[in-house]
Amino acid sequence: MMDATKYAPGYYPVPAGYDSWVKKDHIEKAPAWCSVDLRDGNQALIVPMSLEEKLEFFQMLVKIGFKEIEVGFPAASDTEYEFLRTLIEKNMIPEDVTVQVLTQCRDHIIRKTFEAVKGAPRAVIHFYNSTSVAQREQVFHKSREEIKKIATDGAKLVRQLSQEYEGNFLFEYSPESFTGTEVDYAVEVCNAVLDIMQPTPDRPMIINLPVTVEMSMPHVYANQIEYCDKHLKYRDSVIISTHPHNDRGTGVACAEMAVLAGAQRVECCLFGNGERTGNVDAVTLAMNLYSHGVDPRLDFSDMPEICATYERVTRMHIYERTPYAGQLVFAAFSGSHQDAIAKGMAYRKERGEHRWTCPYIPIDPHDIGRTYDADVIRINSQSGKGGIGFVLEQNYGYNLPPKMREVLGYKVKSVSDHSHKELSAGEVLRIFEESFLNREKPLRVVEAHFAQVNGITATVTLDLNGQRKVVTSVGNGRLDAVANAIQSATGMDFHLESYSEHSLDEGSTSRAASYVGLAWGDGSMTWGAGTDTDIIVAGIKALVSAINSK
Amino acid sequence: MMDATKYAPGYYPVPAGYDSWVKKDHIEKAPAWCSVDLRDGNQALIVPMSLEEKLEFFQMLVKIGFKEIEVGFPAASDTEYEFLRTLIEKNMIPEDVTVQVLTQCRDHIIRKTFEAVKGAPRAVIHFYNSTSVAQREQVFHKSREEIKKIATDGAKLVRQLSQEYEGNFLFEYSPESFTGTEVDYAVEVCNAVLDIMQPTPDRPMIINLPVTVEMSMPHVYANQIEYCDKHLKYRDSVIISTHPHNDRGTGVACAEMAVLAGAQRVECCLFGNGERTGNVDAVTLAMNLYSHGVDPRLDFSDMPEICATYERVTRMHIYERTPYAGQLVFAAFSGSHQDAIAKGMAYRKERGEHRWTCPYIPIDPHDIGRTYDADVIRINSQSGKGGIGFVLEQNYGYNLPPKMREVLGYKVKSVSDHSHKELSAGEVLRIFEESFLNREKPLRVVEAHFAQVNGITATVTLDLNGQRKVVTSVGNGRLDAVANAIQSATGMDFHLESYSEHSLDEGSTSRAASYVGLAWGDGSMTWGAGTDTDIIVAGIKALVSAINSK
Repeated sequence: MMDATKYAPGYYPVPAGYDSWVKKDHIEKAPAWCSVDLRDGNQALIVPMSLEEKLEFFQMLVKIGFKEIEVGFPAASDTEYEFLRTLIEKNMIPEDVTVQVLTQCRDHIIRKTFEAVKGAPRAVIHFYNSTSVAQREQVFHKSREEIKKIATDGAKLVRQLSQEYEGNFLFEYSPESFTGTEVDYAVEVCNAVLDIMQPTPDRPMIINLPVTVEMSMPHVYANQIEYCDKHLKYRDSVIISTHPHNDRGTGVACAEMAVLAGAQRVECCLFGNGERTGNVDAVTLAMNLYSHGVDPRLDFSDMPEICATYERVTRMHIYERTPYAGQLVFAAFSGSHQDAIAKGMAYRKERGEHRWTCPYIPIDPHDIGRTYDADVIRINSQSGKGGIGFVLEQNYGYNLPPKMREVLGYKVKSVSDHSHKELSAGEVLRIFEESFLNREKPLRVVEAHFAQVNGITATVTLDLNGQRKVVTSVGNGRLDAVANAIQSATGMDFHLESYSEHSLDEGSTSRAASYVGLAWGDGSMTWGAGTDTDIIVAGIKALVSAINSK
Repeated sequence: MMDATKYAPGYYPVPAGYDSWVKKDHIEKAPAWCSVDLRDGNQALIVPMSLEEKLEFFQMLVKIGFKEIEVGFPAASDTEYEFLRTLIEKNMIPEDVTVQVLTQCRDHIIRKTFEAVKGAPRAVIHFYNSTSVAQREQVFHKSREEIKKIATDGAKLVRQLSQEYEGNFLFEYSPESFTGTEVDYAVEVCNAVLDIMQPTPDRPMIINLPVTVEMSMPHVYANQIEYCDKHLKYRDSVIISTHPHNDRGTGVACAEMAVLAGAQRVECCLFGNGERTGNVDAVTLAMNLYSHGVDPRLDFSDMPEICATYERVTRMHIYERTPYAGQLVFAAFSGSHQDAIAKGMAYRKERGEHRWTCPYIPIDPHDIGRTYDADVIRINSQSGKGGIGFVLEQNYGYNLPPKMREVLGYKVKSVSDHSHKELSAGEVLRIFEESFLNREKPLRVVEAHFAQVNGITATVTLDLNGQRKVVTSVGNGRLDAVANAIQSATGMDFHLESYSEHSLDEGSTSRAASYVGLAWGDGSMTWGAGTDTDIIVAGIKALVSAINSK
């Protein structure tokens, strides 16, 4: 059923010599952003936004920092018309924000648009017509000259009405379906429009070269932009704008490469909303700049709030893997990743590093209101000691010695593997507690008294399977003496291989946590942990737990 | 809270002279595909797949046409180990499919991997270690030489075990975190590994240069690939592989540009599953080739079925705007798009065009098992006459004249706009029926008899608001005669401006549909439609409906 002979590239590459953009390796300055959420985004929703929802969305866009916002196609529906009128009549457009309205190059639609925008403090009139080969042939049945005339007739009417109506108007023209248009022809049409509009450096006009449908690889589009950059008239009075869709999954690359190639402005939507595969994602573009050290001039520091508002008013779901915003994009389930992240975080903390260089996490989740423990290190059967140790330490303060982490790691992975589910921090804690912490069966130390005779002498009351014994032993230290007492009372054969401790809480009533690793005569190794406000008791509990793990 | 000074580019661009790939405008041949769904994809799931789910997924991958499938990291979990053993022991690996297993360059993990893969008909042993600056400094605390030694020690052990174990082994090495590694150093490490493995043209080795974390723009990565293409030793015995992640939303562009720059193989996941923002999406890559007329050698002709299986076993949701596969990616709600699509479809049908060039839809949805009416033209307040007419015609056979479509269009949009919801085809039909079809109030034609005297003479029995009248009139045709009779009986002032008809069903008992447009003395225009098995009656019903619309 799949027959590739039905297809051939439908775009028009430019001649050689327009790829100098490829020499640049990053974008040095944020482009001008224009949100088209309320137009392209809204028209792609199963249920377009209501007036109230559009107002809320508009205010969110302003708060994020958009200075240009396309508010609709006022001739397209009552709601879009009413929305624009509400913004204007209720003085909801801040001084530094320009609204933009879209209109086809058709007489009655252009007229209705000027009616709709009356009284706006400042507005971009964005007029367009389709110029692609497919649309000329299949939809309009018109020649190149006739299609150009639609554009120039539109431009003439826009210019005329902008003089008749009061208002501060700026202009944008789009040769729609640019990516299916011969580029020299698109330039010819744009230049004809520019000849009518006569932009000047202080009243520049926007020429928007949309990826209406993504048809080529993104570098082919970038070359087209560089060609236009070189061949558009009035270049110092023209703002080249890009408006990528994402049919081939490369909308972000198109936008970024277009900026390298000369585009000064990007039309985009939050979270890549928009027709079909969406418009290019404003969040990704902005945060990509940010991650290279460039101020994006858009503020996503409260991403969770922006996500929640977006999902509520659009009724769309933000995909879990959407860059920077998705629920899973900082998540590390895999052991080696968790280990590297935990080490990277520790490295950063120890050195007081300002620069973010943590492995596997492109930006600091804190910068956009996300957390490390809930969003980054997550535990399932793929996880490892590093991540599991990190979760225990972040949430409960237990800092296990590396070899003990490894043993706990295998236990936790195995529980997740066999129960086929993700484990919460609380579940990891429970496995740790049940396996290692303050275990009192079969052996329990009921009492221990110490005297400083021949090193340390310990008198220990034991309870082994309900039977009491009192033994006295000496050792280099208290714990050693207790260990020796237990060995002499029970005949067990181990030695204390590892001991570590730290305080668990802040302040004077702080509890201590101790960890003991025992090497046994048969070559095996067991671990135990103990907590108590008395550090000696914590150590004994850890020792006993390690014995009880045998 | 957002402070861009925390960041700087963390990648290593290659010197000038490695960007000749930019001269090519499309990919001419599909690369070798390797699915990493069962490894990278699986490890990124909140709940990794069970054994049964992995087996089902494997079989789906085989059916799609993957010839190389990374089946896991058998040393990582019991499930992964058991899965590989099941594939081997139940002979589930087809002859033309090679399984691939992943191992870190660590002694005991490499050994466990060879144990796990014992008896496989053919297997790629994929070994890796991290080479990036960040990992060397923060995680391993090792020098470049020491890190290289991890790789070469691993290679030596792999080579040794591959001679000790029976089996048909191929090899892959990845300098993990390649995108954070100085490229000349990565080449040095790879060449050192190649010196040990000694590949030959008939036993080539895979060198995989992963975008472990996406750190640069995709052309920077493509230049790096071209550099490696020029500087790797044993080049005719090396298969360069790419493995892009998608942290900057440009994974697809990385993969495609890498192929232009010399990569011969792509590691990818269905629907872009994988850690964080995912691995590069196999579906998008394959279908992008397809849309340019290149056989992708992967079969997605039953996309809905593949989507359903994927969603069930991974418990992930396929994002509505994921290229080619998402629910909304062919959807057109907007009027102008619908109109162009409807015209494009008609153009194609009329001409019997083989090539797909329909505006706004990059590929024929039928090719991948999607439908036109449910998936493409959808109706809400943004829709227009073209789309609404298309839906009526596709689903119910009504082919309205263009001007009548326009009137219906405004009615439908208004219902959707004010009720804030998408309308089904059935709801569009209901609006059409209520507004235009077979309307009998206030006027009804009870009977009409015709005689061929002075043209056509009609004797018409009318019922107007319950009052009966019988009138006789002449006309040029039957409908004209009836219209004249009604005018003379009621004093109404209209003339028949538009009349059209077509059969509604196939066969001899077919019903006819008629459409009448009336121009009234006051300058207004009304429309009506009628259906009947008698075409004369259908016409009269349409006429009366148009009158009743006044």
